[in-house]
Amino acid sequence: MATMAALFLKTPTPSHSFPKTHKTLFAAPLNLSLSPPPNPKTRRATRIVASALIDPDGGKLVDLVSEPAKREAKKREALSLPGIKLTRIDLEWVHVLSEGWASPLAGFMRESEFLQTLHFNALRLGDGSVVNMSLPIVLAIDDSQKDRIGGSGSVALLDSGDNPVAILSNIEIYKHNKEERIARTWGTTAPGLPYAEEAITKSGNWLIGGDLEVLERIKYHDGLDRFRLSPAELREEFTRRNADAVFAFQLRNPVHNGHALLMTDTRRRLLEMGYKNPILLLHPLGGYTKADDVPLGWRMKQHEKVLEDGVLDPETTVVSIFPSPMHYAGPTEVQWHAKARINAGANFYIVGRDPAGMSHPAEKRDLYDADHGKKVLSMAPGLERLNILPFKVAAYDKTQSKMAFFDPSRPQDFLFISGTKMRTLAKNRENPPDGFMCPGGWEVLVDYYDSLTMAGNGRVPEPVPA
Amino acid sequence: MATMAALFLKTPTPSHSFPKTHKTLFAAPLNLSLSPPPNPKTRRATRIVASALIDPDGGKLVDLVSEPAKREAKKREALSLPGIKLTRIDLEWVHVLSEGWASPLAGFMRESEFLQTLHFNALRLGDGSVVNMSLPIVLAIDDSQKDRIGGSGSVALLDSGDNPVAILSNIEIYKHNKEERIARTWGTTAPGLPYAEEAITKSGNWLIGGDLEVLERIKYHDGLDRFRLSPAELREEFTRRNADAVFAFQLRNPVHNGHALLMTDTRRRLLEMGYKNPILLLHPLGGYTKADDVPLGWRMKQHEKVLEDGVLDPETTVVSIFPSPMHYAGPTEVQWHAKARINAGANFYIVGRDPAGMSHPAEKRDLYDADHGKKVLSMAPGLERLNILPFKVAAYDKTQSKMAFFDPSRPQDFLFISGTKMRTLAKNRENPPDGFMCPGGWEVLVDYYDSLTMAGNGRVPEPVPA
Repeated sequence: MATMAALFLKTPTPSHSFPKTHKTLFAAPLNLSLSPPPNPKTRRATRIVASALIDPDGGKLVDLVSEPAKREAKKREALSLPGIKLTRIDLEWVHVLSEGWASPLAGFMRESEFLQTLHFNALRLGDGSVVNMSLPIVLAIDDSQKDRIGGSGSVALLDSGDNPVAILSNIEIYKHNKEERIARTWGTTAPGLPYAEEAITKSGNWLIGGDLEVLERIKYHDGLDRFRLSPAELREEFTRRNADAVFAFQLRNPVHNGHALLMTDTRRRLLEMGYKNPILLLHPLGGYTKADDVPLGWRMKQHEKVLEDGVLDPETTVVSIFPSPMHYAGPTEVQWHAKARINAGANFYIVGRDPAGMSHPAEKRDLYDADHGKKVLSMAPGLERLNILPFKVAAYDKTQSKMAFFDPSRPQDFLFISGTKMRTLAKNRENPPDGFMCPGGWEVLVDYYDSLTMAGNGRVPEPVPA
Repeated sequence: MATMAALFLKTPTPSHSFPKTHKTLFAAPLNLSLSPPPNPKTRRATRIVASALIDPDGGKLVDLVSEPAKREAKKREALSLPGIKLTRIDLEWVHVLSEGWASPLAGFMRESEFLQTLHFNALRLGDGSVVNMSLPIVLAIDDSQKDRIGGSGSVALLDSGDNPVAILSNIEIYKHNKEERIARTWGTTAPGLPYAEEAITKSGNWLIGGDLEVLERIKYHDGLDRFRLSPAELREEFTRRNADAVFAFQLRNPVHNGHALLMTDTRRRLLEMGYKNPILLLHPLGGYTKADDVPLGWRMKQHEKVLEDGVLDPETTVVSIFPSPMHYAGPTEVQWHAKARINAGANFYIVGRDPAGMSHPAEKRDLYDADHGKKVLSMAPGLERLNILPFKVAAYDKTQSKMAFFDPSRPQDFLFISGTKMRTLAKNRENPPDGFMCPGGWEVLVDYYDSLTMAGNGRVPEPVPA
């Protein structure tokens, strides 16, 4: 995040100007920043799932943050334990686990959970029911760390400054077969998969699973923490708004008017279906992304402009950050994206073309068939309760000068503007056709690419160190 | 099978001497060879699952063989359709499908079944229930075959002599992403996986799925067809014997006394559990195997000797051939091996150390963790009804001069004789320690390796052409 903070400082719109307008737009953070968060101790007792919202996986939202009264004792315990230093991505997973995005998972996976994830994309619970779990949420350690743990049943997890962040107890250490993990998660072992290169290939030969207890809520101190609502907080917000349907839109790219059209149209369809108050969860992914993706801070700025310009209605939209890192594992990962949103209260999930997809790292083709994500999601074990809403294809309609749903009877009227095309235009300070994106949002993109040019001759900066 | 027949002719014990003794030993084939097989038409109506046996997956055993009355019409229809020439392995899958080993699958997989298999190792049925399905059962075609099919909704499947074997109807053609298929099935894409090299890498870029109808029961005319009992025939045999438990033992290697001890001990344990008549299904795999495995014909000879020498009790043993080809896909494949045996009536399955495992094709290690097969099998969706019996480790006890369950309190007394060691001894015409294998069985192995030496200076012959 040091990189992102540095970028903010170099831009004409410094990051601290961001909160100025968010209050009327980012409704959920607004309420949370005005009223102090409830006492975590009472919160635990009162976090009852509203009956109108979909139940979290396993029936109960996992909350792995220590009660404040026990925090000091836990910290002392942590200091007495063998320590494991966390990478940035490890810490993001600690965050994800601690707030129950992966409910009912209550810590880094032990081998039985790891194997079920790799082979079945699902976990069977004690009562025989099944929840979806498609990505391994695991913590790698190397031989020397394993030696240092010795016979201890617990370890302390340390941040980059060696401060204890969490305790992992009842630990189980097992082999980290990286090749098999990569092959079964991505369906390829070709070198160049961003997450694999960043977090797997160089990591240790062992995995350590156990029960996680986080000493304090994970914060990044990057000016964006207030947008990082936990699943429990999102559920509170949806309940406060009397949502009778919540539709989630996962994204890691700037929002253009095609996206906005889709979201607006989804709300219209839900109203037609009889729902009285469908709420959109606009949920940008906030963890690790590959180097050529637009960084989170810039995306949040862009999303803000989209709401400011009235493209989306703040009254029926909650913008929040999903803390998970990105795997770019297509059909396998889209299940995780959907499952985590069930835990946050969403019962409708919008799935795009080639979700979580990317180019094959070694061959000139997309890694996944564009339709597989949607198909796999619709058949995935443990996601039967979720309503999958396939993305309708939007493109620029030259006859109307705006984004519209593609009409196959007059293909010549439509212009498809890919992510690559969009980025190239912004990099070259060219404008997209009128109506492709609100002008405020487009400016943010142009500013971002300008900042890269200023930072180092247009070269994309190194990814955030993990 | 041409290769195998050739080998038989070169051995001192020609293949046609095989049936001479089987009648008293291979109880199931005996009964079937003495009484003519029931009329397929009436068989269809009377194939009611005995209440004592486990239900097949999906509740009903799939039978895809044409009724004799319709056969001629079907053959004429087939001759009018675009034809797809089957490889040897394709034909083995046609065999597997036609007899319901893969019930409720009723033909080569369409894309939705293929994707569920790759991602979830399971298929969800119309009623929401789930059956296990871990290996893709698919038929690859190339661009020119796809062109030739054009808009036809059905194709004829042809044997090596261009005779129609089956019709595939309501076809669906979809992309064959070989890399993804291999990665998700094996957990590696390293070159040198026998099945992948034999049947995937060189195969076409498309898969064709559809409903299968086989014109006549698949036969190989290799002297072993009478040992190829269908799941329905096995169920009839188990019912005839009043089996109240059926325990299956999958194998693709010669039986030594350690195996025999395990099978005998399993029966003892089942009797202790209160079963009155547990029957062993000794079920050697009969389809494609890699070049250095002992060919089926020789293995069947060896199994015969094991029964002849009284190592296993013919009264409580049914020896039959499982027609599936071998993937060597470890934890993924062992699920298929178990699932198919449910369809044949087995409710207990003996799982060994590293089932369906092999050495990593490119690295000096086993491809799979030796315990993963057992663990994955015990957690696999759709196999909850099957009782998994983990293999106890047997080794040669030097103090007793026989195979015995390994006693960890006196490891120095035990000798582990690996498959490689066993093959090396047999190749060199050396004898294993007394009590390792019955002498008759050992002789078959020595004869097999002698026949290789005679055939070509000890070189392992080419695999059976697919």
